[in-house]
Amino acid sequence: MAKSQINLIALPGIPDIVPGDDLPAVILAALERANLRLQSGDVVVVTQKIVSKAEGCAIPLETIIPSPKALALAEVTDKDPQLVEVILRESRGVIRQRGGTLIMETRHGWICANAGVDRSNVGGALGEVALPLPPDPDTSAQHIREALQKATGADIAVLITDTHGRPWREGTVNVTIGSAGMMPLADLRGTVDRYGYILRATIVARADELAAASGLLMGQAGEGIPVVLIRGAEYPRGAGRSTQMQRPPERDLFR
Amino acid sequence: MAKSQINLIALPGIPDIVPGDDLPAVILAALERANLRLQSGDVVVVTQKIVSKAEGCAIPLETIIPSPKALALAEVTDKDPQLVEVILRESRGVIRQRGGTLIMETRHGWICANAGVDRSNVGGALGEVALPLPPDPDTSAQHIREALQKATGADIAVLITDTHGRPWREGTVNVTIGSAGMMPLADLRGTVDRYGYILRATIVARADELAAASGLLMGQAGEGIPVVLIRGAEYPRGAGRSTQMQRPPERDLFR
Repeated sequence: MAKSQINLIALPGIPDIVPGDDLPAVILAALERANLRLQSGDVVVVTQKIVSKAEGCAIPLETIIPSPKALALAEVTDKDPQLVEVILRESRGVIRQRGGTLIMETRHGWICANAGVDRSNVGGALGEVALPLPPDPDTSAQHIREALQKATGADIAVLITDTHGRPWREGTVNVTIGSAGMMPLADLRGTVDRYGYILRATIVARADELAAASGLLMGQAGEGIPVVLIRGAEYPRGAGRSTQMQRPPERDLFR
Repeated sequence: MAKSQINLIALPGIPDIVPGDDLPAVILAALERANLRLQSGDVVVVTQKIVSKAEGCAIPLETIIPSPKALALAEVTDKDPQLVEVILRESRGVIRQRGGTLIMETRHGWICANAGVDRSNVGGALGEVALPLPPDPDTSAQHIREALQKATGADIAVLITDTHGRPWREGTVNVTIGSAGMMPLADLRGTVDRYGYILRATIVARADELAAASGLLMGQAGEGIPVVLIRGAEYPRGAGRSTQMQRPPERDLFR
């Protein structure tokens, strides 16, 4: 029986994250400020940006020496060669390039613009920096989950998300690039809905639905809502990895 | 200032929909059963299936005479020729075909498997039927919105959704194929987040985030939750059309 109500709750007051910050402690403090206690079945959604920052992934661009390949790709895309070098280091390869658009396969296997590398002009002591995705988001999610569960006793799921563009459709949506405590895909194959229609939607990307829902609160420019709590959602429990959502290249019609 | 909490509420007890049913009346009755009153800013999300059924879109497959093109495509995809004929009538063209997978551009401009055509083995008096998407989902959404606003006085948005697969990522997500009362895209271009990172996610597909969120409640096999109320979400108001989310082919790298 599906639950009838789901709550999406922004966790307020999370400070700027710096390398070495203890994200579970930061999240627990934010929950306490909001008078919330984690409950079993909750989903804690964390933007990749604060995970990358906490893990010290930011790279000062001035330290980067672009390879000949980066120089060539920077030329055709009209991008900063040092940024392109970081993008290439984060990638298995280029999926598509046209003009300044660079769709890459990240080293984790995600396909997105610029391999998910952000840049900032206000890197503080580091100067101008590039911020790649966390190196292993599933493991990052698992660490956050274990710490939150140890502190609260609640059996929860943790998602790490990023905003991706899509083919054919304008606008970005938040998607999951790291998960712990759930199976990212809900397998409904072989089922028929109550109207007798065979379900076309046989395997539902539950982790991406949760990520997109959290984007409704995270996605405000300048607001800085890096963590969203989702309460009441059904999801398949288990030790799944977000990479189960990666379609194998040989079964993908759009590479 | 972003709101800090969003509620997703399944509307229970919606009966099987038949051609000619008054969907706004059905939705109002479901709201009343749930002791809910529409408020300005609410979003009412409706699955395309009940819109198609109410609009009498179901086609008895035995009445369909497949064209030579449908017969040929049925052969290579190992699909029912009559179903393929309906899919072709609903389409501008084939985007990709491999084995039994048929990715079409619908006559509205959406790109999805089988042009969004469902089939049912239990069509009742009609026998086996194919159920295409509504012919003009934006107008359908507008009609529902006007009737709900007239009845309640609340300034709301209405979305009509379908579940689509995606390139590169396994699993389906609910997306918007019809909208009224909102701009489907939230334009954040030129903004910088609080960490000083230039927002890569410059244009957010807010209507698709709302659709995916509703999928958390709709997506249960056999449960039949065709309408979800979303309360507390921020979205850009205006007389937008969902088709604004369709990327023009000349700017699409994946056709």
